Amino acid sequence: MAPTKAPDSSRRSDRSRRAIHDAALALVTEVGYGRTTIEGIAARAGVGKQTIYRWWPSKAAVLMDAFLDLAGRAAEEAGAGAGGETRSDGTAPGIPDTGDLVADLKLVLRATVDELNDPALEAPTRALTAEGIVDAKLGAEFVHKLLDPQLALYVTRLRAAQEAGDVRADVDPRIALELLIGPLMHRWLLRTLPLTHAYADEIVDYAVGGLAPRT
Amino acid sequence: MAPTKAPDSSRRSDRSRRAIHDAALALVTEVGYGRTTIEGIAARAGVGKQTIYRWWPSKAAVLMDAFLDLAGRAAEEAGAGAGGETRSDGTAPGIPDTGDLVADLKLVLRATVDELNDPALEAPTRALTAEGIVDAKLGAEFVHKLLDPQLALYVTRLRAAQEAGDVRADVDPRIALELLIGPLMHRWLLRTLPLTHAYADEIVDYAVGGLAPRT
Repeated sequence: MAPTKAPDSSRRSDRSRRAIHDAALALVTEVGYGRTTIEGIAARAGVGKQTIYRWWPSKAAVLMDAFLDLAGRAAEEAGAGAGGETRSDGTAPGIPDTGDLVADLKLVLRATVDELNDPALEAPTRALTAEGIVDAKLGAEFVHKLLDPQLALYVTRLRAAQEAGDVRADVDPRIALELLIGPLMHRWLLRTLPLTHAYADEIVDYAVGGLAPRT
Repeated sequence: MAPTKAPDSSRRSDRSRRAIHDAALALVTEVGYGRTTIEGIAARAGVGKQTIYRWWPSKAAVLMDAFLDLAGRAAEEAGAGAGGETRSDGTAPGIPDTGDLVADLKLVLRATVDELNDPALEAPTRALTAEGIVDAKLGAEFVHKLLDPQLALYVTRLRAAQEAGDVRADVDPRIALELLIGPLMHRWLLRTLPLTHAYADEIVDYAVGGLAPRT
């Protein structure tokens, strides 16, 4: 999205963008989404508000890009930390495939629980999700940019499980993944009960049992 | 909640309350939650705004009671229409138990799909859910008053299924129900893909397969 520029200018742009992202996330946590303004984000990031208006049409758009940036950073760290391959486009290397479907899914659902319970991201994640629930256009962008790439990783892992004979061939992976993600998000969004690793494990056990070949 | 009064006055109160509920639901659909005001609800319901302030502390509280009222009305109609028993407290008669767990759950999940897709209720349901996602106190009230009574019906049905040997004894019904409700709500809230009867059926098939005794 950034225009082609000299490397120095481009690096300055990247630094400004990241400062704006971080300011937006912090402000939403501190004062709430309703009271977060473009002016407030600009002041905190140390940039002029015109800089923000040049790059983003709204505070929701800033927040969305902040999460995309975070996802990119997390993928880089995961790639570096685990010694695994980060793809050239910076996306996550995917759900591990150790051959043990239940263990692989528990690992990734537990990590999702930890992300959702991270106090530094809770308020902005809730704010953006809530906005998308009432604003269909923003919601579609949220799903397209942030959620669908995650869901695609589950489809890939479940297809591999089908090939390995751990999941029935007649199961639709795009639907099956919702038995894993849906309960987690529902519990977190509505705060029905605590979102824990034990809960993630149980969801995986129940769901995978329903997808496995009937013996 | 209504103070003890002469029957006529009490009937007038009930009529006013219902007019206020309907006005709140209609206004949120027409102008959105953000632009719905107590003044606007009062004008549309043909009551003074002091009448509303006397009964409710906020527009969110009006909306919550509107949904409770709707749930009560739906339970009455279901009881009358199906010739089934409506309980004395007006709550829904529960999930049917025909002995066929899959069929019973498909029936109730398809009905939930229809409710969620009802255009007359979509905007207020989204608005109240979104408010609860960012406002923990309101969210807890939403869960306690509106959601938990629904979830309890699933627990009852799943316990009966355990007694009948259709669900393993080691399954926790309170967690298992989230494999049914979670995917539906997730798909509806985030609008990832169309929410259809076919989807409800597939969720039931996958989930019940994971809860059934291992053969």
